[in-house]
Amino acid sequence: MHCPDQPGIIAVITEFINANGGNIVYLDQYVDKFNGIFYMRVEWDLENFIIPREKLSEYFQILYGQRYQLTYKLSFSNKRQRMAIFVSKMSHCLYDILARYIAGEWAVDIPVIVSNHPDLQIVAEQFNIPFEVFPINRDNKAEMEARELELLERYEIDFIVLARYMQILSDEMIKRYPHHIINIHHSFLPAFVGAKPYHAAYERGVKLIGATSHYVTADLDAGPIIEQDIVRITHKDTIDDLIKKGRDLEKIVLSRAVEKHIQRKVLAYNNKTVVFS
Amino acid sequence: MHCPDQPGIIAVITEFINANGGNIVYLDQYVDKFNGIFYMRVEWDLENFIIPREKLSEYFQILYGQRYQLTYKLSFSNKRQRMAIFVSKMSHCLYDILARYIAGEWAVDIPVIVSNHPDLQIVAEQFNIPFEVFPINRDNKAEMEARELELLERYEIDFIVLARYMQILSDEMIKRYPHHIINIHHSFLPAFVGAKPYHAAYERGVKLIGATSHYVTADLDAGPIIEQDIVRITHKDTIDDLIKKGRDLEKIVLSRAVEKHIQRKVLAYNNKTVVFS
Amino acid sequence: MHCPDQPGIIAVITEFINANGGNIVYLDQYVDKFNGIFYMRVEWDLENFIIPREKLSEYFQILYGQRYQLTYKLSFSNKRQRMAIFVSKMSHCLYDILARYIAGEWAVDIPVIVSNHPDLQIVAEQFNIPFEVFPINRDNKAEMEARELELLERYEIDFIVLARYMQILSDEMIKRYPHHIINIHHSFLPAFVGAKPYHAAYERGVKLIGATSHYVTADLDAGPIIEQDIVRITHKDTIDDLIKKGRDLEKIVLSRAVEKHIQRKVLAYNNKTVVFS
Amino acid sequence: MHCPDQPGIIAVITEFINANGGNIVYLDQYVDKFNGIFYMRVEWDLENFIIPREKLSEYFQILYGQRYQLTYKLSFSNKRQRMAIFVSKMSHCLYDILARYIAGEWAVDIPVIVSNHPDLQIVAEQFNIPFEVFPINRDNKAEMEARELELLERYEIDFIVLARYMQILSDEMIKRYPHHIINIHHSFLPAFVGAKPYHAAYERGVKLIGATSHYVTADLDAGPIIEQDIVRITHKDTIDDLIKKGRDLEKIVLSRAVEKHIQRKVLAYNNKTVVFS
Repeated sequence: MHCPDQPGIIAVITEFINANGGNIVYLDQYVDKFNGIFYMRVEWDLENFIIPREKLSEYFQILYGQRYQLTYKLSFSNKRQRMAIFVSKMSHCLYDILARYIAGEWAVDIPVIVSNHPDLQIVAEQFNIPFEVFPINRDNKAEMEARELELLERYEIDFIVLARYMQILSDEMIKRYPHHIINIHHSFLPAFVGAKPYHAAYERGVKLIGATSHYVTADLDAGPIIEQDIVRITHKDTIDDLIKKGRDLEKIVLSRAVEKHIQRKVLAYNNKTVVFS
Repeated sequence: MHCPDQPGIIAVITEFINANGGNIVYLDQYVDKFNGIFYMRVEWDLENFIIPREKLSEYFQILYGQRYQLTYKLSFSNKRQRMAIFVSKMSHCLYDILARYIAGEWAVDIPVIVSNHPDLQIVAEQFNIPFEVFPINRDNKAEMEARELELLERYEIDFIVLARYMQILSDEMIKRYPHHIINIHHSFLPAFVGAKPYHAAYERGVKLIGATSHYVTADLDAGPIIEQDIVRITHKDTIDDLIKKGRDLEKIVLSRAVEKHIQRKVLAYNNKTVVFS
Repeated sequence: MHCPDQPGIIAVITEFINANGGNIVYLDQYVDKFNGIFYMRVEWDLENFIIPREKLSEYFQILYGQRYQLTYKLSFSNKRQRMAIFVSKMSHCLYDILARYIAGEWAVDIPVIVSNHPDLQIVAEQFNIPFEVFPINRDNKAEMEARELELLERYEIDFIVLARYMQILSDEMIKRYPHHIINIHHSFLPAFVGAKPYHAAYERGVKLIGATSHYVTADLDAGPIIEQDIVRITHKDTIDDLIKKGRDLEKIVLSRAVEKHIQRKVLAYNNKTVVFS
Repeated sequence: MHCPDQPGIIAVITEFINANGGNIVYLDQYVDKFNGIFYMRVEWDLENFIIPREKLSEYFQILYGQRYQLTYKLSFSNKRQRMAIFVSKMSHCLYDILARYIAGEWAVDIPVIVSNHPDLQIVAEQFNIPFEVFPINRDNKAEMEARELELLERYEIDFIVLARYMQILSDEMIKRYPHHIINIHHSFLPAFVGAKPYHAAYERGVKLIGATSHYVTADLDAGPIIEQDIVRITHKDTIDDLIKKGRDLEKIVLSRAVEKHIQRKVLAYNNKTVVFS
């Protein structure tokens, strides 16, 4: 939740939870003093909670929402989210995600993998997940995306992970999943926006390469950043070495971001993110 | 403050502050579920606070201390702490601390530098800080430390920083400043406890060297860790290279720990630390 | 190759290669001045090389071996090595290795996966690799290992990767593959040797956790280190968090070490490694 | 030295040194296969070297220079270089450099500190180094720089370190010290070129901030990068926190670059650097 910063807001919310029989199991808050905004993430046990689950949002809105200009999101942690993975031809991020999924690391369902190329069908088959190919090109983009959206709805997808998906989404599509499409870009943004960042990094002679996971917005590679990391390189590294070293970075950075999103610990606001620990 | 974890404790404390006219400017809390302990650090503005400063501790104890088995420490942030630096012959940590001090980075006073060798007198003179030499050896240790303690009291020292001080403190001395003596050890503890850790690291063929800042306790190099960091090395690095690379690490790690201590953001408990952000 | 350091050794070797029509495509050398040992790794193109492939070792030994007390290893990079993976119940390292294998990142064959538990059979099946279970216990260890060795020979295994294999190998077995068994230990060795290092790290209150990949020797967790890395943790991380964060570290550190081994860029000597870049 | 890559070049050079009685104490080479360029750095003992020191360059040029199109630089390591430091108002990089200088870490002389503000005179005095103020503004820039150049010549300065010097040098001045002016920029270039990079980093919501040390060229913040590093930040960090965390990064990154330059281990070519280890 977030709202204009105001005295006593923590006491009010925690008191509400305690007074109604909730036991707080997680609380983290943060005040952006520059903009005067209060952010909080609080998790509590509903077992002995007096207010019924289906009335909770209504009560909360009436009691606090308007009074404190509070924007909030209620989620029930026993409700598993449904995630679609978009891929093209590279498998490293896809394997990293599926290995975690199969091992039960994440409370998520992955009912479908979408691609603009048939190459990774074999990976989807290894994990018994439906694989749908939409061979998008300049001419058929609108139609293909319409069919993709249909598919996403059919599978009741909550959020999308672009695991090195090499195709720019239309604004139309992005608008349908605001702050619910996670991309991995293979540079430390805002350096090397756009295509071929490893080539650009090699050209510029940097001593570090990076990867950035962010929510997709209408501006290419400019959405709110969730996670970044880097690895050292030297003059000895060729472009192929950068690509190789970058792969490990990309998969770890993307998976960290996806995990935070699944745990509902990322709060996007003003093109930036608050990532709770 | 810390106490056994219990429902409603955050609400109680924040309500107490708000109800008495305090404006919370910082709050961070953490629940150690394993041991059932609740830790919190809260900072508030005293300007319009109803309870007078000198009564605050008494009130807090009566109202909450016993009831919640709450251990707390009240500090007024306008009270500058007084820090003594202990050194031997190496200057890198000392310079790093003094450069920050002179630049006004830290809200701290450094009224004296203590050493068992005369070598760094010149540095103390550069910064116009009294420099006191106690040439400790096996025979005069008890007497020398007694005189050191006298000096520390005379200068009203709140806490001590061992900036590569190569002399083991007696238990007696440690007991006088519990969790108020900060040391830098040049390894990633608990690896390479004791003397010559870089030599040991070289012998073992590790690919990383580290530095650890910790509170000094009676057990050598085994006190609560405040901060650690590492740097990569390769087979090409000689022992001298390790010492050189280690120096940068030592000074940064020690200064980070000292800063957290000055900000009263380190809470030691059960030989571990909670370091608030 | 390595030998006692002596003037002109580089000139001699590079001249030998050039004079016989070889084109050097890689050369890296390193002098351990402390111990007076010269290490070099040189790779050259055999296409126009005058000395026939099968005579090369003989020539080299006669011309240089004795004269310079030179210990060397000749490998032909078109000969793919054969690697066996040993696992127990955890899949993260295994998936990371197999994902690279399938994507063709490594010039290696993986003809068999060995385990002391049946749990990961399903992963082996996903990748169509034979999976052999040897349910080792105290009583049957000698017999089981004998059968494992038989199997390794049958599959013509060159080296073994212990991908979180939770069973200590006998000295007998280790001796059969000197510096050809790679293990991943989930701590920054030499800290936290032995069982449950994450629990020990949690107990000690460290601010970093690590992972170490090393060659297995008769001394538990004391073999030559190939690669290490760490990740930051805080007081908020539970043991489960450490285990989770550690998994990413383990798989990356192990895979980096395996890759260097496959590229024949690791030279073990005196319980340390030279890792060429 | 660097030249077009060609077979046998290492053997030729090392043979030359050995045959004339030189003992090689350091050799590192690197082949840029993409551009077909061979780079090498070799250091040898002149004690028993037959060719006299003053003839060395001539001999080398006649024997190898033209024949191999070899560009080389001969330096005698007993000749201490002379370095000027340029500063403005911030002291952290200056103190870090002077602390190393005083401790004898670097084989360098620092005969003068130059500034466009009088603020850091006090630091220069602490270390007994002449401090010269040139209050540059738009109107007097040409004249001031002319006087600076005069001063640099008078002090026989070999290279210049801009230790957070907040004034852009004219092309004229840069041309006088090609690849001999080292700057520290407080971002991971090429991200956040120009003024106020921490503000820009805050605005963009990055999760890492960086620092870059590079040779100054006519293109602002676009010269060959010598060293870079980063530190993690979170949403909790204010601009002031970034500035504070950045300071530690800036001083370490700058000092690492300066050290490599002093050791003559940086070779700039094609707007990139080869940094020998």
